[in-house]
Amino acid sequence: MTVGGRAVGRDFVLIAGPCAVETEERTIRTARLVKEAGAHMLRGGAYKPRASPRDFQGLGEEGLRILAAAKAETGLPIVTEVMDARHIEAVAACADVLQVGSRNMQNFTLLRELGRIRKPVLLKRGMSATLAEWLSAAEYVLDGGNEDVILCERGIRTFETATRNTLDLAIVPAAMAVSPLPVIVDPSHATGRAALVKPMSLAAAAAGADGLLIEVHPDPALAASDRGQQVTPEEFAAIARAVLSLVAWLASPEGAGA
Amino acid sequence: MTVGGRAVGRDFVLIAGPCAVETEERTIRTARLVKEAGAHMLRGGAYKPRASPRDFQGLGEEGLRILAAAKAETGLPIVTEVMDARHIEAVAACADVLQVGSRNMQNFTLLRELGRIRKPVLLKRGMSATLAEWLSAAEYVLDGGNEDVILCERGIRTFETATRNTLDLAIVPAAMAVSPLPVIVDPSHATGRAALVKPMSLAAAAAGADGLLIEVHPDPALAASDRGQQVTPEEFAAIARAVLSLVAWLASPEGAGA
Amino acid sequence: MTVGGRAVGRDFVLIAGPCAVETEERTIRTARLVKEAGAHMLRGGAYKPRASPRDFQGLGEEGLRILAAAKAETGLPIVTEVMDARHIEAVAACADVLQVGSRNMQNFTLLRELGRIRKPVLLKRGMSATLAEWLSAAEYVLDGGNEDVILCERGIRTFETATRNTLDLAIVPAAMAVSPLPVIVDPSHATGRAALVKPMSLAAAAAGADGLLIEVHPDPALAASDRGQQVTPEEFAAIARAVLSLVAWLASPEGAGA
Amino acid sequence: MTVGGRAVGRDFVLIAGPCAVETEERTIRTARLVKEAGAHMLRGGAYKPRASPRDFQGLGEEGLRILAAAKAETGLPIVTEVMDARHIEAVAACADVLQVGSRNMQNFTLLRELGRIRKPVLLKRGMSATLAEWLSAAEYVLDGGNEDVILCERGIRTFETATRNTLDLAIVPAAMAVSPLPVIVDPSHATGRAALVKPMSLAAAAAGADGLLIEVHPDPALAASDRGQQVTPEEFAAIARAVLSLVAWLASPEGAGA
Repeated sequence: MTVGGRAVGRDFVLIAGPCAVETEERTIRTARLVKEAGAHMLRGGAYKPRASPRDFQGLGEEGLRILAAAKAETGLPIVTEVMDARHIEAVAACADVLQVGSRNMQNFTLLRELGRIRKPVLLKRGMSATLAEWLSAAEYVLDGGNEDVILCERGIRTFETATRNTLDLAIVPAAMAVSPLPVIVDPSHATGRAALVKPMSLAAAAAGADGLLIEVHPDPALAASDRGQQVTPEEFAAIARAVLSLVAWLASPEGAGA
Repeated sequence: MTVGGRAVGRDFVLIAGPCAVETEERTIRTARLVKEAGAHMLRGGAYKPRASPRDFQGLGEEGLRILAAAKAETGLPIVTEVMDARHIEAVAACADVLQVGSRNMQNFTLLRELGRIRKPVLLKRGMSATLAEWLSAAEYVLDGGNEDVILCERGIRTFETATRNTLDLAIVPAAMAVSPLPVIVDPSHATGRAALVKPMSLAAAAAGADGLLIEVHPDPALAASDRGQQVTPEEFAAIARAVLSLVAWLASPEGAGA
Repeated sequence: MTVGGRAVGRDFVLIAGPCAVETEERTIRTARLVKEAGAHMLRGGAYKPRASPRDFQGLGEEGLRILAAAKAETGLPIVTEVMDARHIEAVAACADVLQVGSRNMQNFTLLRELGRIRKPVLLKRGMSATLAEWLSAAEYVLDGGNEDVILCERGIRTFETATRNTLDLAIVPAAMAVSPLPVIVDPSHATGRAALVKPMSLAAAAAGADGLLIEVHPDPALAASDRGQQVTPEEFAAIARAVLSLVAWLASPEGAGA
Repeated sequence: MTVGGRAVGRDFVLIAGPCAVETEERTIRTARLVKEAGAHMLRGGAYKPRASPRDFQGLGEEGLRILAAAKAETGLPIVTEVMDARHIEAVAACADVLQVGSRNMQNFTLLRELGRIRKPVLLKRGMSATLAEWLSAAEYVLDGGNEDVILCERGIRTFETATRNTLDLAIVPAAMAVSPLPVIVDPSHATGRAALVKPMSLAAAAAGADGLLIEVHPDPALAASDRGQQVTPEEFAAIARAVLSLVAWLASPEGAGA
């Protein structure tokens, strides 16, 4: 599975961008900054699964158009969420990787239809899904003939309130022990706290994750959703530098034991 | 909201039937038996959300046809699950109440479209959904103009393994304290153990639940899914007798204090 | 096991009283009121296990003296917590039932020594204890030769925040299916909300619990601990009336099916 | 706080050894091997908190004697658990660091007395303890005047069964953000799987942990407790090499960004 020249599962992939696509100007600016900082793909939500119907629901088709513009401008492949089987065609026309969110991890009709396309699917773990259920959900896509599934750990729900969710990094090697699928980590949703994104990104890389999905916003305080967890482009640049340097070290003869 | 002559939210409703519709003969036989035992509605899955694509997925349209036949035969209103917005019309043609399963509690595209129909929606709580999220999910239906939403508690996920899930009965009065929606309880999925269905049914009634959703199979050992939790028609008859008697007592002058 | 003339496990037992013993006057007043309302035992904490060393830690020995006075005044047997093996003798001199709190469910040195006394031990389930672990903890007492262990379900920890803990009523029949020990329920700690104590008390009785442990305070707003969950003596009287009436009905020929 | 020449909180500390002390020969052999591999302290349980009274409970005083012998032989400081306030003196005579296990995190009488000694206390997080509760428990020790508390994350309880517990690495930086106490990680109990100890050790170091507590047994299949999670001395040597090399790199100018 190769996206934008990166062999996912072999090359470490850094996916970054805003939680939700808000404006064209802001999206393109963010895309340029994360690319410069080392990101390999741009993430951004056009369709947003929001707990309440009164919350901002994303720009929909207009969001897809903006993502396409950002891709044209920067060359970054696009990762964006699809929530409805009837949107697959439109989303796939813009996206290089189609994301299935936690809330839809067991939306089997959606998964089944994603098995029929020929673009990678990034499958987020459900908030209370076991590893077995997550892998079974992936099989709905694989069984349809689409072998390009990327698993994404994004935190599970526990009683702890110091973080938004509990990032389950042990599931990375545990999944790899029983499945050939690449596993990436989303430290932004997992912790819900911008200050924890860097240490958890490094920890994920050290645990053997195949990549990271990080929320970046030029002005987090103004973000339309999930403000507390988005890092600034400057913070992202520092994270990218640290993580890519760690990944390089882990692959070096010196870090080979690790 | 009146279904089959019962005012849901005022009259206690007993909904019973097999986890999945399997054969016409078996479905009609079960329908007759649960009706005789006091059930007010028949439940049965035509579309089954199953963790693995290799599990039995339900009979689909043929299942809907069988449910319609069981309704014609017994007069029992039908409660059945809809998993895909594109099936709503077909399911609504057969069903009196459309069920949204736990895994789809935050399938917002499905919920939104169920807001446009004029049949009651039974919304199961997600496996790790908070009360706030459950009520927000209901708002997707309500906001569309469909005011007939029935909440259904079916157990949440915890570390305890003696039961399949942990039945959260306190959520019944907690939900009622902040929402006018009726709340029913599914002790079958919550416990996963046939022997616990009766005590939990009584407990749910005592906690003030507006009804029960109970899985009944003429031969649980042969059920195509969820064998351990289905009770026999005879066991259901005993449960129904006990629960309806308790409900009557709770409504009597003697039980009025309770 | 007989306490104050009630055969625990056969006769339903209502245990009520303040979270913590505060003053002699208030304790005796509460004892009189709960006795009048139908309580069979008085609960009250002299030693309080508090999360922070800055929280009120209980009156200690002075609390035990007050409990003894309340017993002398009302004849109600006393249920009170022991947190330290070195206090067992002093606590047992006053208490008819020694309580082990959730935080000490796996304090094996304490349990082992409680196996050597000849007074009933009320063992609360740990906040995240499985049924198997709870029963294993009870064995530390039983193995010492003290066969009078009462299990007390008090809610487990989950992600839900609408209630303080999640009351796991299915564990009542699940425990009874594998153990001969009586099982009672504490709806006060489980829900943390006074308004939910009555419905959960009725639900517990309907689920087959052998009794209830309810926090009652003459003026909950002034309580030194756990204010939100304590009911007034008047509220307790209504709960007791309802529960005892339900228990009587369940034992009647009419309720026998239930 | 300096133990064996390491300034805990500044110097990364590797603590290794068997779950339980079994024989003198085996303990000394393990001590030599882990020292050679780079461990800075020896762990080993003389008093074992076991779920069932029928499980191996540790060698008690004889175990302390063996640990003292291992220390005499290797010079490694000893970390061992204390479960009972009445054992503190005996344990402190042998141990350089006194461990409080998960089950005793809220054994406040034990914590209070540990506040009176002048040896470091390693406080494991309770299985379902929030960060706030963990820090409050630490205050029982700190308030007594003992400022040398080391926090140890060892996994929390969730619904996931692929690992024994869920290792919550985000709690490491989250704790450090609000507390000056050093935080170490126990990947052995957290995962329960020997194969996951290495990736989780690296992840913990990358997350900023101040050290690791790793179970090592010369022949894990023969261990008296927790077989599945103990690594061999050879495996430990590889882990130590990798972790210490990562820690050195993180502290180097090159890794400084990380």
